[in-house]
Amino acid sequence: MRYLDKQSIEHIAVGAAFLGTGGGGDPYIGKLMALSAIEKYGPVRLYSVDEIEDEDFFIPSAMMGAPSVLVEKFPKGDEFVKVFQMLAKYLGREKITGTFPMEAGGVNSMIPIVVAAQLNLPLIDCDGMGRAFPELQMVTFNLDGISAAPLAISDEKGNIGIFETIDNKWTERLARTATVEMGASALVSLYPTTGAQIKNSGVHNIVTLSEQIGEIISSNNRDAKDKLEELLNLTSGYELFQGKITDVIRETKGGFNFGEMNLEGIEGNKEEQMEVYFQNENLLAKKNGQVVAMTPDLICLVDYETLLPVTTESLKYGKRVRVIGLPAHPKWRTEKGIETVGPRYFGYDYDYAPIEELVSKAVAKHV
Amino acid sequence: MRYLDKQSIEHIAVGAAFLGTGGGGDPYIGKLMALSAIEKYGPVRLYSVDEIEDEDFFIPSAMMGAPSVLVEKFPKGDEFVKVFQMLAKYLGREKITGTFPMEAGGVNSMIPIVVAAQLNLPLIDCDGMGRAFPELQMVTFNLDGISAAPLAISDEKGNIGIFETIDNKWTERLARTATVEMGASALVSLYPTTGAQIKNSGVHNIVTLSEQIGEIISSNNRDAKDKLEELLNLTSGYELFQGKITDVIRETKGGFNFGEMNLEGIEGNKEEQMEVYFQNENLLAKKNGQVVAMTPDLICLVDYETLLPVTTESLKYGKRVRVIGLPAHPKWRTEKGIETVGPRYFGYDYDYAPIEELVSKAVAKHV
Repeated sequence: MRYLDKQSIEHIAVGAAFLGTGGGGDPYIGKLMALSAIEKYGPVRLYSVDEIEDEDFFIPSAMMGAPSVLVEKFPKGDEFVKVFQMLAKYLGREKITGTFPMEAGGVNSMIPIVVAAQLNLPLIDCDGMGRAFPELQMVTFNLDGISAAPLAISDEKGNIGIFETIDNKWTERLARTATVEMGASALVSLYPTTGAQIKNSGVHNIVTLSEQIGEIISSNNRDAKDKLEELLNLTSGYELFQGKITDVIRETKGGFNFGEMNLEGIEGNKEEQMEVYFQNENLLAKKNGQVVAMTPDLICLVDYETLLPVTTESLKYGKRVRVIGLPAHPKWRTEKGIETVGPRYFGYDYDYAPIEELVSKAVAKHV
Repeated sequence: MRYLDKQSIEHIAVGAAFLGTGGGGDPYIGKLMALSAIEKYGPVRLYSVDEIEDEDFFIPSAMMGAPSVLVEKFPKGDEFVKVFQMLAKYLGREKITGTFPMEAGGVNSMIPIVVAAQLNLPLIDCDGMGRAFPELQMVTFNLDGISAAPLAISDEKGNIGIFETIDNKWTERLARTATVEMGASALVSLYPTTGAQIKNSGVHNIVTLSEQIGEIISSNNRDAKDKLEELLNLTSGYELFQGKITDVIRETKGGFNFGEMNLEGIEGNKEEQMEVYFQNENLLAKKNGQVVAMTPDLICLVDYETLLPVTTESLKYGKRVRVIGLPAHPKWRTEKGIETVGPRYFGYDYDYAPIEELVSKAVAKHV
């Protein structure tokens, strides 16, 4: 167990936004919420997965919907606790051991910290994706047959819903339509989970990894190249592209941000170009027409100079970025994982190939 | 207290479909469900409102959505009980005194009979409309500030939702989007209500009135004119038109059946014509371009010969019908009532005028 202080939270927000692959919410908003919560209620205890008991019981908290909408619907802070307690009450559980994030992301890593601070509960160093994904069945717990329902959903006005469903895709469908009706973003508590389930089916150490990534990116007095090297070492990642954004097509539809961006090379590789396709999260990257990374592997955009993560809602013409690719958690690279979040699920007509292969092919071709 | 037997149910189904003003579901399907329930579980006890105690507690059951869809999604029967019990459990109430219909209609008058039979609970001789309306805040309980939520909703597949909302319009919005996602029709339990609230805010004796209407319509060895006279006497109604349907425009949108029909006079009044506009229920009737009845007053279509009610989903070109208008329950004719279900709410640019006035004006003009 260790305490998360303000410094940790600053780092986690940045690192989680990086792992959020463009989605998971704006790290600035997320950070403000979490900082204000620990200022008011004190630092939050972070437990590693080894430190919890099998029979402990946890409820995650998250935001659902189009992240771009959250920018305008800034949460008050007590909504997260309300929906968390609603689910606890519905489950007839007086005692909830703690909470944890559903996904990595600038906002979705911070909401559980807010809940943990307000309710004086521990946060567990684990999530259900090891990155961010747009739909709520896209969770490692789902791969092991754990139910997303009962799910509690709430808007900032005070409307609340609870869903019990026949499968996790129906949970996604019903929660998604409620989210859209509630104004395209909503708060959810879902995947109520035991300690044993977290041990078997969660992605471990994600909070700590986020913090380490954030620490590297935020470190002063170091140049981008040096920081990047350390970042790629830590995450087994690849720098896929350096370029500037020349075009962004974006649409908020059905509670998602859909879109595509085009990038043009800079400094010595001006002939090169890249396209990145996203649905809240970046899902597929093509370099000079060739796929170099695809979901479930991570495609992370960072500022060219500062390495600060760039979310899909902040994409702007002319912005200079680096595109970084990371291998997904091994759970996503299984047959069930690829079926759930692979390129074909999102409508891209490619067989999944790991980023390691795609990159070495691209290098070979280049030589 | 009296028992509802097969004969009563046959009559209630017909009379309630008449009061359903085109909506509330097909009386044939409704009747089959209720008959099969009392065959299996025995006759249902009907209590008048005078016979219940103030502190008794009731939960209504109903179908929500586009009635035309129900024709294809025939319910199994236990879904109604499931959603009823879900709400009872959510409310933490072990004992529910009984059930009652939300509205009059071929199906929505029958569902509470199914629930009453299966759970051996009494049915109360009351509803929340005295007719049928398309949206769930259009209930006399709502006029008195009684909450539609918590509402439980379910589909035939087994998905379930519960909503707690800030007002009854939000209950309608969230339940409607869930209904659409569930396949355009769903089952709901809502407006949990005490005996005192039923006494103050319900429309009393509606089951008995439905039965009386059904009895008149179903009686043999009498001609249409004779039966019609008795029907109009009982309901303070008017025969607005005799004609055949020349055109129907219909669309299922957002979980409703929207549409408009044109009628042409028959037998001595061939020059005359009528238009009827509907949203699940018939809402406005124009005779020769002049409004002769409008919501909340009832516009009921019946077969020209048999006087059997004609629902909006069974409208067919060439069908010969009579159009009958009835005054709405006095609760609907208040300022709040007109605001909630008057012509302007549905987008018709008319001030509400009672059918008594409109008819006497039309007669005066005719003379």
